[in-house]
Amino acid sequence: MGPHGDGDMEKVESESHRPISTVVFVIAMQAEAQPLVNKFGLSETSDSPLGKGLPWVLYQGLHKDLRIYVVCPGKDAALGIDSVGTVPASLITFASIQALQPDILINAGTCGAFKVKGANIGDVFLVSDVVFHDRRIPIPMFDLYGVGLRQAFSTPNLLKELNLKIGRLSTGDSLDMSTQDESLIISNDATLKDMEGAAVAYVAELLKVPVIFLKAVTDLIDGDKPAAEEFLQNLAMVTSALEETATKVINFIHGKTLSDL
Amino acid sequence: MGPHGDGDMEKVESESHRPISTVVFVIAMQAEAQPLVNKFGLSETSDSPLGKGLPWVLYQGLHKDLRIYVVCPGKDAALGIDSVGTVPASLITFASIQALQPDILINAGTCGAFKVKGANIGDVFLVSDVVFHDRRIPIPMFDLYGVGLRQAFSTPNLLKELNLKIGRLSTGDSLDMSTQDESLIISNDATLKDMEGAAVAYVAELLKVPVIFLKAVTDLIDGDKPAAEEFLQNLAMVTSALEETATKVINFIHGKTLSDL
Repeated sequence: MGPHGDGDMEKVESESHRPISTVVFVIAMQAEAQPLVNKFGLSETSDSPLGKGLPWVLYQGLHKDLRIYVVCPGKDAALGIDSVGTVPASLITFASIQALQPDILINAGTCGAFKVKGANIGDVFLVSDVVFHDRRIPIPMFDLYGVGLRQAFSTPNLLKELNLKIGRLSTGDSLDMSTQDESLIISNDATLKDMEGAAVAYVAELLKVPVIFLKAVTDLIDGDKPAAEEFLQNLAMVTSALEETATKVINFIHGKTLSDL
Repeated sequence: MGPHGDGDMEKVESESHRPISTVVFVIAMQAEAQPLVNKFGLSETSDSPLGKGLPWVLYQGLHKDLRIYVVCPGKDAALGIDSVGTVPASLITFASIQALQPDILINAGTCGAFKVKGANIGDVFLVSDVVFHDRRIPIPMFDLYGVGLRQAFSTPNLLKELNLKIGRLSTGDSLDMSTQDESLIISNDATLKDMEGAAVAYVAELLKVPVIFLKAVTDLIDGDKPAAEEFLQNLAMVTSALEETATKVINFIHGKTLSDL
């Protein structure tokens, strides 16, 4: 979808010369967020600035002088399970940016991945760019809009320092993968598959906030096991790996400017 | 997903005894909105209360003493086409409810429909309830969350007075229909297919605002023509039919309470 407009670049430019002071993690599932919340001793806000009467959960705390927030969409009121997928992720990203004014967003979570693209269970990837694989609109320009290609904020020093794998992330609202999903994921040359990333990128671009993505592999799409089974089996181990990498990212970010990343 | 919780019902109850004063139309495409904007002489707000620097378009005006807003997601900054689909629709619904405090939301737009379920090109349906057909999550409870069944606000008098057809709406982010989409639409017994409705319903429930849906049929899913071709061919005629029905709805709503509907 191309780079930010001129105004956005000026904003990023002027802000890239002071140290990052506020980071917001957007995390879909409580189980993905909890290890990070525990590690940094974050506490749940009782009077959330994101709005009253919403299921959204906001944690906050300080790591040295870096303010860290973790926002989750929380439990579905009727079903009691985490509100995964693009719609709740979009809403909490929007409301968090408006209320918390972060310098940078980090969308962290689990994902599926292709072993033919070099992924293993437990790998934590930094995402190069994002697309959607379930928005097929076969009308000129609308087709590109549906794919929604967006770059993650470029962090070459972070990538090198943490020695992370890097790949393209493809987002859709299903945990499984239909034939049409698969052919779009392959034609878009994606390595990773999740249920929120490209929607978070859309909102970040709309509100002109840099965003990066940490995605930890719970299941191999081209492996032998059904995605749901493998996902549930590996969730605890993989969220622990995700927390370790997120901690390294926070330590790397501390004291740096956006352009240092 | 069941009815509103107790608190919501109390709110709806207390508000159902005073006349409706503010209506917000959520409309995905400019071409769908324009006839209604013209009909009621609505004017575009220059200093939008929905936020600065966003592509969103907000029209407002008065019909007698009824305040009418029309909100559209506007053009994609990079591609110049309307920002259709669930993510932008969710965001404008959220921001509109927060900023404009409507008594009722109306999601109006075009849709595909099944002729075997009694639909014809140009029909305007009132929606009974909504589901998603592209959120397959085969884990217990998550599967129901993905389907996201929600009731539209019940308006038996409006339905009778305007003699509208009624049916279930199924939402997904693609204009075309994959094999998996089709089997979910059929197993959910939906009559109509659109790209926003169930997401608007999700946000309306989250923020406890009654919502109804007016959906005008541009293409027959079980007809002979490709959806995109038929959609573009019928768009102008069908949006005119949509405006006529929306006008009747506004005239019916004027002076009534929620419980009169």
